[in-house]
Amino acid sequence: MTKKMTAAIIGGGVIGGGWAARFLLNGWDVRIFDPDLQAQRKIGEVLGNARHALPMLYDYAMPEEGALSFHDTVAETVEGADWIQESVPERLDIKHKVYAEIQSVCAEDAIIGSSTSGYKPSELQQGAARPGQIMVCHPFNPVYILPLIEMVGTEMSDPALLDRASELLTSVGLYPLRVRKEIDAHIADRFLEAVWREALWLIKDGIATTEEIDNAIRYGFGIRWAQMGLFETYRVAGGEAGMKHFIDQFGPCLQWPWTKLMDVPELTDELAQMIADQSDDQSGHLTIRQLERKRDGNLIAMMRSLKQQGNASGRLLNEHEKTLRPELQEGNPMLSLRRTIPVDWTDANGHMNEGRYGQIFSDAAEEVMAFVGADDDYVANGLSYFTVETTTKYLAETHAGEAVEVHTRVTEGKGKKLRCMHEMRRAKDGEILATCDQFMLHVSLETRRTCDPAPEVAARVEALAAAHQE
Amino acid sequence: MTKKMTAAIIGGGVIGGGWAARFLLNGWDVRIFDPDLQAQRKIGEVLGNARHALPMLYDYAMPEEGALSFHDTVAETVEGADWIQESVPERLDIKHKVYAEIQSVCAEDAIIGSSTSGYKPSELQQGAARPGQIMVCHPFNPVYILPLIEMVGTEMSDPALLDRASELLTSVGLYPLRVRKEIDAHIADRFLEAVWREALWLIKDGIATTEEIDNAIRYGFGIRWAQMGLFETYRVAGGEAGMKHFIDQFGPCLQWPWTKLMDVPELTDELAQMIADQSDDQSGHLTIRQLERKRDGNLIAMMRSLKQQGNASGRLLNEHEKTLRPELQEGNPMLSLRRTIPVDWTDANGHMNEGRYGQIFSDAAEEVMAFVGADDDYVANGLSYFTVETTTKYLAETHAGEAVEVHTRVTEGKGKKLRCMHEMRRAKDGEILATCDQFMLHVSLETRRTCDPAPEVAARVEALAAAHQE
Repeated sequence: MTKKMTAAIIGGGVIGGGWAARFLLNGWDVRIFDPDLQAQRKIGEVLGNARHALPMLYDYAMPEEGALSFHDTVAETVEGADWIQESVPERLDIKHKVYAEIQSVCAEDAIIGSSTSGYKPSELQQGAARPGQIMVCHPFNPVYILPLIEMVGTEMSDPALLDRASELLTSVGLYPLRVRKEIDAHIADRFLEAVWREALWLIKDGIATTEEIDNAIRYGFGIRWAQMGLFETYRVAGGEAGMKHFIDQFGPCLQWPWTKLMDVPELTDELAQMIADQSDDQSGHLTIRQLERKRDGNLIAMMRSLKQQGNASGRLLNEHEKTLRPELQEGNPMLSLRRTIPVDWTDANGHMNEGRYGQIFSDAAEEVMAFVGADDDYVANGLSYFTVETTTKYLAETHAGEAVEVHTRVTEGKGKKLRCMHEMRRAKDGEILATCDQFMLHVSLETRRTCDPAPEVAARVEALAAAHQE
Repeated sequence: MTKKMTAAIIGGGVIGGGWAARFLLNGWDVRIFDPDLQAQRKIGEVLGNARHALPMLYDYAMPEEGALSFHDTVAETVEGADWIQESVPERLDIKHKVYAEIQSVCAEDAIIGSSTSGYKPSELQQGAARPGQIMVCHPFNPVYILPLIEMVGTEMSDPALLDRASELLTSVGLYPLRVRKEIDAHIADRFLEAVWREALWLIKDGIATTEEIDNAIRYGFGIRWAQMGLFETYRVAGGEAGMKHFIDQFGPCLQWPWTKLMDVPELTDELAQMIADQSDDQSGHLTIRQLERKRDGNLIAMMRSLKQQGNASGRLLNEHEKTLRPELQEGNPMLSLRRTIPVDWTDANGHMNEGRYGQIFSDAAEEVMAFVGADDDYVANGLSYFTVETTTKYLAETHAGEAVEVHTRVTEGKGKKLRCMHEMRRAKDGEILATCDQFMLHVSLETRRTCDPAPEVAARVEALAAAHQE
């Protein structure tokens, strides 16, 4: 993105703060309006979590943070903004009033997204000066990590504006799910609602506690859904007989007795208290801040594991990460890698495991390879470099959340040989954390044996080695 | 476990096969009864998947596989078995007939578990010779990976037998959730049912396709549920105000219009076909076998990432893994590590990333440390060894699913110094895959500086180095 983008966040709190963090950490300027006197503190806390978490998702450094500012009026906040996100309380009269204030000042081609889970876009658009500008963009907590945004428009919506909104959401690592027709509660919350209702019954009738229900979910279908959702999971369960067969078999179950339990249990004070007490027993030994960190660590670790598999939300991460990958610049040494140490790279000693140093140097070498023309396409065409020997010196400890840089010199580059001397430094103060002398040989991925590189790669390797001799 | 354990699997298929794999790969002998002529092939396929997947979950080798046999009669299958798992079709008359056959032969203290999702244990026990012996042990597909087992008994059940069943399930890496009162569909399937009903409506009304619903789940609440389930997630969402406040706020939503959509849509042939067609569009480019492999790879990678975090199903894995960790034996070299290369360790070149060699050698060194007394407790008390320098030679490629062994000699051990020479070999043929010369220094975890080891550790290191000189 060449133009500097600006987001206006109307209404802070956990959701507004999550949006702010998502835009800010992707390089946007962010302006915030929230009359709550605690708004700065609350948003500061969400931002603290996000700054710790989000950069750990990627194997490249994120863009430089945008500028954050707090404003006293809606008008000042939204003027000239590209994206305006409304996350005010779920009351239609309040929302309509806010839209009127926004639209009296904002650009006609700005996007006005609402975080509402309770209202349909046609309800939001009622009485607006430019109804087509307002759409539902419903996020999921934590907004700075989870990619899903339910995007809902109406017949009044400008298709070009919806497309533009999709593009912008994608550019900050989100996944806009375009909902085909508006419906109460959009899609995901309808499922949450159905499950919540059932959970209330189970607790009320003494069948299970909050912790037992959580375990029933996360040790079974929860982790299954995290990667395939509902239908693909059932497709696999159906086996060779196919999806139609599975549904025909499964259908009659819907008439079984338990499906009759569909009325809403009365949410008495007693039931609410029972749930609260059970939840205290389960999780009361951790503060909300600790639970948030635990949740974020789990989510990042799982999403990174799916990223390596190239599936589900990990596929989205890989797509977004392509936009973060910089082109290597000439230099002696070259700045071959910039990244943050993720939460899943530490070991029992509380620091980055020594194996991960090897991974970082291997990633740095991959960037050098790309620079000399041995890039992804080259590898896809069956040629690559394999590492034959490394000597690594571990000079200082490295911790999760730290930004690091690798500087690389090519110390040998002739024929099949490619030798790199890497230095990994802490970005903050330049301290050298580790060095690696890495010796590689060019191979054919077909024969898995050494062979000469393509002539243009050989020439670039030789030139780089010569430049780095100086 | 000292005694060799035996499981009898009555009814093969995906679920019975999954049980068979779970027991077999944990070292039990497994006998199978299934009159289906295709049973051997079908169970062979499940076993193939399980043999590929399950060992990758752990950082230690699993026990040696038990013996697998197929039998022609229920009597022959269950005689002398410790665990009898019934996974026959969901018809009560069939199940009763099978229990009568089983109980005429099996030991009185054997456990008879049923995989049923549709029947309550009191229904299963009706008319049985020893009703207290029969319990629901309801698993989740794939049974060889997912830990959840819903265990349900009745007042007739022998509490000691339920405890024994819990213990045995835990010993093969499963998580028995003891359901407090019997109820139709137990716990998890009630949630699945509620979600399924809602999904049918969304498809029928043209709100979303199967793929859009899967995305709404896995890019949002699905991955959240995989680690915290329902209630802990909401506890975090409720923030500082607490769980009671959250429920009081959330409660009224249950009266909102969308919660009225609770009747069951008629599952016409047309609707079934619509779902099947959408599912073909979404996933039809992959065979069921490919989808299974993809699912298993995702699940293993996510569970391994939770294992590293020590949370959710990863916490269970860590507990189970303790039983797999062998005591190191004297030797020159010592066999310091045996493990399978997991699916999340490979890179763009299609083989194990060089960083993971470093991790394996680091893990091997940890075992040597434990052998000389610098074990987990020692580290918890603030002393450890940090690696200062490694020289690694990569001699052959290593792939996901391969079993490897590390053999280690201590080449220097005096004062603060500990130096190991590791060789990593392919278990199958003993080929050397890599070597690592690893130099470590003893440190205080408090000052993060070098210091002398505890005297008994120093003495053991010195003795080991001397023994390995010979």
